[in-house]
Amino acid sequence: MTSSASAPASPAPATAAAPTRERLLDAAATLFYREGVNIGIEALCRAAGVSKRSMYQLFTSKDDVLAASLDRAGSRYLSQLLPAPEADLPPRDRILHVLDRLESLSASPEYLGCPFLATAFELKNPERPASVVARRYKDTLTDFFREEARRGGAHDPDLLARQLTVVFDGSSGRAVTQAGSLGGLAMATATVLLDAAGVS
Amino acid sequence: MTSSASAPASPAPATAAAPTRERLLDAAATLFYREGVNIGIEALCRAAGVSKRSMYQLFTSKDDVLAASLDRAGSRYLSQLLPAPEADLPPRDRILHVLDRLESLSASPEYLGCPFLATAFELKNPERPASVVARRYKDTLTDFFREEARRGGAHDPDLLARQLTVVFDGSSGRAVTQAGSLGGLAMATATVLLDAAGVS
Repeated sequence: MTSSASAPASPAPATAAAPTRERLLDAAATLFYREGVNIGIEALCRAAGVSKRSMYQLFTSKDDVLAASLDRAGSRYLSQLLPAPEADLPPRDRILHVLDRLESLSASPEYLGCPFLATAFELKNPERPASVVARRYKDTLTDFFREEARRGGAHDPDLLARQLTVVFDGSSGRAVTQAGSLGGLAMATATVLLDAAGVS
Repeated sequence: MTSSASAPASPAPATAAAPTRERLLDAAATLFYREGVNIGIEALCRAAGVSKRSMYQLFTSKDDVLAASLDRAGSRYLSQLLPAPEADLPPRDRILHVLDRLESLSASPEYLGCPFLATAFELKNPERPASVVARRYKDTLTDFFREEARRGGAHDPDLLARQLTVVFDGSSGRAVTQAGSLGGLAMATATVLLDAAGVS
């Protein structure tokens, strides 16, 4: 979590502030994802059952709430995608696990695309705090792919990692534009790239 | 153009209505792309130099303006991507032309991603008129890839066409999240898929 995204505007007793902060961030993450980043402060506080005064005691601006809520929801989203660290899988399977999870998640009618990609598209400004959070999580995913590609003996782990991120994002986008299941497309496309890169 | 997106609420003399309509749609397309689909009617009319009354004589709702403006801007965007029909290129080069154009467009700081993908992500509802327009244009791109893949002797033209659309969308998404040039990634990824599909 970046300090700019989560630093409280004024300190509050940890025991009192923590539940409010978490309730606000969870409600915010759900609302921003479902309704878009332009949801107003009033709707946000209403959904979280938090007063505007409480909100401004914890965050300096709506931009900070957005960034911190994406950060909180994002780490959960990523943990839904990545294989468990203790899972004893070869690198190729660890990579395909991510695409397989994306296929599953995107089959739900509640799936509205990768939250990092959605936020970046909606904000239209790479300097906004939540755009920075989105970019950092995308980099985390690419780093995961790169490390597995390297372990799997890819000819060019860095190129393969960026290609797999493109497949991930393009598949996420397709699930949104087509409003339907990917039907194995993410897996099939990643498989071609893994084969060509020598990760068997 | 779908009738729901463009049908005027009440007929107006063609000569008087046409310039107003076009001015409104061009201003709307620019604003929606730059600021997002939540731009208000007032800002829209101000940018177009059109009264709200004139707008509602031409369109039943903001949703209709959004869909019609995406339709108008979309056909221009697509013509920037596709090779000229008279261009005498082999199918593989015609496909790579699209990715090469995407690389060029996305290098501009004004590029905020594929407008169809952006609109679908922002609307978060596949039934909205502009989401339908976005899906139709995405299908047009996939149809182009499929026809070239078929002419180029691809093992499975339909699969390759969907994979190339994924690469297109993922590259567009990456240009947004990374806020930078693709550096040949779209071309390199499409090349791997073309090679594997037997389109030489």
